[in-house]
Amino acid sequence: MTFSDTTQPHSLLCVGLDADITRIADADQFAFNRRVIDQTHPYACAYKLNSAFYEARGADGWTAMAQTVAYIRQHHPQMFLICDAKRADIGSSNVAYARAVFDELGFDAVTLHPYLGGEALAPFLNRADKVSIILCRTSNPGAREIQDHNDLWQHVARTVVNKWNANGNCMLVVGATYPDDLRTVRGIVGDMPLLVPGVGAQGADPAKAVRAGQNSHGGGLYINASRSIIFADDPATAAHDLHAALNAARNKA
Amino acid sequence: MTFSDTTQPHSLLCVGLDADITRIADADQFAFNRRVIDQTHPYACAYKLNSAFYEARGADGWTAMAQTVAYIRQHHPQMFLICDAKRADIGSSNVAYARAVFDELGFDAVTLHPYLGGEALAPFLNRADKVSIILCRTSNPGAREIQDHNDLWQHVARTVVNKWNANGNCMLVVGATYPDDLRTVRGIVGDMPLLVPGVGAQGADPAKAVRAGQNSHGGGLYINASRSIIFADDPATAAHDLHAALNAARNKA
Repeated sequence: MTFSDTTQPHSLLCVGLDADITRIADADQFAFNRRVIDQTHPYACAYKLNSAFYEARGADGWTAMAQTVAYIRQHHPQMFLICDAKRADIGSSNVAYARAVFDELGFDAVTLHPYLGGEALAPFLNRADKVSIILCRTSNPGAREIQDHNDLWQHVARTVVNKWNANGNCMLVVGATYPDDLRTVRGIVGDMPLLVPGVGAQGADPAKAVRAGQNSHGGGLYINASRSIIFADDPATAAHDLHAALNAARNKA
Repeated sequence: MTFSDTTQPHSLLCVGLDADITRIADADQFAFNRRVIDQTHPYACAYKLNSAFYEARGADGWTAMAQTVAYIRQHHPQMFLICDAKRADIGSSNVAYARAVFDELGFDAVTLHPYLGGEALAPFLNRADKVSIILCRTSNPGAREIQDHNDLWQHVARTVVNKWNANGNCMLVVGATYPDDLRTVRGIVGDMPLLVPGVGAQGADPAKAVRAGQNSHGGGLYINASRSIIFADDPATAAHDLHAALNAARNKA
């Protein structure tokens, strides 16, 4: 994985493998992912698996997720692999989750809810070899209802950068659908890498996201697109074009 | 399930089936749960399965969770069954989670993070036949770090009771470890049932929780204990004694 490489010379594109079984003809999630990976890997720096689409299938989904991680590890060892599980429980339960996501499934990173606080998240944060990606400003239309309570999302960003990031292994989720807030978060967190959903099917402007969110090295962004790439008629072209649009908007060193 | 019965004439006790595989001699989670259920069901009104302890085992854990739900349904159909999964994603992913928890596994209720807002949680909230239990004041020692940001936990309680509870199918999680806050939440939410973790191994006083949290009918509480019952030398006696202590503290109608 390339987490430490915040300059990301090659690509800012994270491809979201949201392998929705209702949209896959033969219902084989791993085969579907393998085809997408084979077509998109030249343009991607990361893959993100949203665990909802796998867990909903029980044992078969778990296996497909594990097979996908193993396939990427074998063929593209430089890829950063994110489990988009949006977890967070109290400490003893998080020990079990951390083991499952990092050790059994083999991901580099996992997305986490901040609500229970850093004490509860310690089993994730203490894994200095793995990355904790904390929800800050989510990309959905109703994100403001709770997150705008007295600028809670900024409180989360400050808490993560000042307290939870002792191992230098934290990132934040900030939606491209809120570019002004993305710029504000970048001002709070320095060069910390950000996971940025919301382009593609959710409609945010990719170039605007890069201009608002890039760090002092013209990187520090994992800009995710899922449905707009994996269900495109030609995933390779879709990934190529988005990758090019993202790079065109970067401040080159 | 007995969600509508907020008077709960029989019991306030929810037994938490946190079947930690590292503490089960033969590693058979379903057999372990079956023994606990057989010994504790006379004293319980609900069972709660913390999904972390099952998901961490992959396919086997999923099967054990499904078997446990089916066993309780068959033998104790009046029990309220809670999946303590602490989920919440954006809408399309929540559709998959709701289907898995409510329809495939067959739970009555699921615990949810509030951070993404009611719009994102709609696939859960719109299931009028099922219950959404929103994290408000969690029981862990570090709960205040985020939840006290300008009294965020009270903002969550007000938002749930005023907006998200249109179908009358919401509950809140409020830790017995914060009895003053439990009393405050009761003042905000009227007779809404509350899931109250924190007694037992986490050390909160069960009688104090009942006095602080009961509704106008002397009920509206699902007071959860997990490790202190299921790993007791005699789970039946542990459940009996806690059940009696809880009932002794109630205001009888």
